Amino acid sequence: MTAKILSGNIFAQQIKDEVAVGVEAFRHRHGKSPTLALVRVGEDSASAVYVASKVKTSAELGIVSEHVHLADSTSQAELLTVIDDLNSRDDVDGILVQLPLPTHIDEHLILERVSAEKDVDGFHPTNVGRLWQGANSLTPCTPAGVIEILKRAGISIAGANAVVIGRSNIVGKPMAGLLLKEGATVTVCHSRTRDLAAVASKADILVAAVGRAALINRDHIKDGAVVIDVGINNLSDEQSVRTMFEGEELERRLGAINSKGFTLVGDVNPKDAKAKASFFTPVPGGVGLLTVAMLMKNTLTAAERRRSANSK
Amino acid sequence: MTAKILSGNIFAQQIKDEVAVGVEAFRHRHGKSPTLALVRVGEDSASAVYVASKVKTSAELGIVSEHVHLADSTSQAELLTVIDDLNSRDDVDGILVQLPLPTHIDEHLILERVSAEKDVDGFHPTNVGRLWQGANSLTPCTPAGVIEILKRAGISIAGANAVVIGRSNIVGKPMAGLLLKEGATVTVCHSRTRDLAAVASKADILVAAVGRAALINRDHIKDGAVVIDVGINNLSDEQSVRTMFEGEELERRLGAINSKGFTLVGDVNPKDAKAKASFFTPVPGGVGLLTVAMLMKNTLTAAERRRSANSK
Repeated sequence: MTAKILSGNIFAQQIKDEVAVGVEAFRHRHGKSPTLALVRVGEDSASAVYVASKVKTSAELGIVSEHVHLADSTSQAELLTVIDDLNSRDDVDGILVQLPLPTHIDEHLILERVSAEKDVDGFHPTNVGRLWQGANSLTPCTPAGVIEILKRAGISIAGANAVVIGRSNIVGKPMAGLLLKEGATVTVCHSRTRDLAAVASKADILVAAVGRAALINRDHIKDGAVVIDVGINNLSDEQSVRTMFEGEELERRLGAINSKGFTLVGDVNPKDAKAKASFFTPVPGGVGLLTVAMLMKNTLTAAERRRSANSK
Repeated sequence: MTAKILSGNIFAQQIKDEVAVGVEAFRHRHGKSPTLALVRVGEDSASAVYVASKVKTSAELGIVSEHVHLADSTSQAELLTVIDDLNSRDDVDGILVQLPLPTHIDEHLILERVSAEKDVDGFHPTNVGRLWQGANSLTPCTPAGVIEILKRAGISIAGANAVVIGRSNIVGKPMAGLLLKEGATVTVCHSRTRDLAAVASKADILVAAVGRAALINRDHIKDGAVVIDVGINNLSDEQSVRTMFEGEELERRLGAINSKGFTLVGDVNPKDAKAKASFFTPVPGGVGLLTVAMLMKNTLTAAERRRSANSK
């Protein structure tokens, strides 16, 4: 079997197009645009890139974004005040605090302070609880994006045997909750799992989110499985790269190691996935591309729910 | 193999003894007893029995209970006012709303209204979210009781292959979250699961919480598995009872059907569990006995957390 590659940009574009239509309708009804506040503390360079990308996509879809950039020396109390202010402002529909925060700030405390109704990252415990209780919630962007890919690719989830590898709060656990809500039989594996290959190779839908380059190989993949690779790892080992890619792609990857010192790979060996799976999301170019699109969707959802709650 | 029977009353008594000691220490430190408000609406006879049992156990352990019994005609708005009042009273540490509520009241809305800090049933979305995020939470009593049984019986959870059958908000899902937190590889099965016996028979720890009499039989149980039966079903079919019990126990069960019209059974066929499992919780006399003990433990925990938060 040669796996069909599920390219993230097609689905991301579909979702962004739909959000743009929704934003236009929202503006018509409410006389304002959905508004997203992006809070960034300090000078982490990756964070700067991520926030810039969110600002740009917001603008493309008609969402107003407000970038609150605070100095690295901002105290926890000051940051809490900023969040309280954004919570109380009626014009702000969504609040995203870009992680990581400087180490003198308690991330958990900050994330719990964001109003659950404006928590477009879906990290607030109330939203996590609503997800698991099957109620309306704002759901974490990456696992919500995986569900969008599966549905839009016509992959049936109900009754499927789904295995999630990884139990992080950001991906693994909410992924399990969403798959369960859709009717899959769900297994969560992690570092303490005894025979990972035995469990994973039973999966109709296999989601890898552990953060270890090419951990998942042919031994873990059932013939015809749908393999979703959420991992993003910098790999500098040429030997490993040679087991993962071939032909032109291999040359490009080796070139990247030569020039930048690493190449970006997922948790799944793509050569093995292509050989055994029915569908496979590549890294880069797969799941990662949906994350910002889902953030935009959450912002619109938050705006719509707030306005309909206010008008009751 | 003949399974060792895990009798709930031994563990329930241990927990109650520990709570009584904790309550005494709490009273010493704070000059008052932990206080539990029990809210009951209408005349459901089972609810009356459950609340009476909670009042009685509270008294035995030194916990002050306050039974708020409202007429069946109580409106949703009136009930919300009662809960707001209990939320704001400093002397009240725990609030339990006995379910089911009359049909004119939105259960979900009521349960979200109880302050998360006083939510001793662990049903508030914020507590559900904290459970899944691995933070301190008040956890639902029945699945928390199962974890207590496993730990006190010396059964190792980390690395075990655990299968939970049922995905209810009250048992199945929080059970999965707690087992995952303890390091098990966790699978959640339910009505859409394709080959239940194939999945269940891989489990080192099998938790049945579906509410179907003797659904789980020898085909679902691995040799030497730990089998936890959370189901409570009224069974009136003599033929089924004959497949589940033998000897004196069978005579008692048939007698119950003759006199009351039914006998109380779990989701697991006990004859099969005894033959194949290493440990087995019976019904009645197993998991069910821990629920009230865990409610008392949650009440003490809520009281301690509130007082330590207030003194900061």
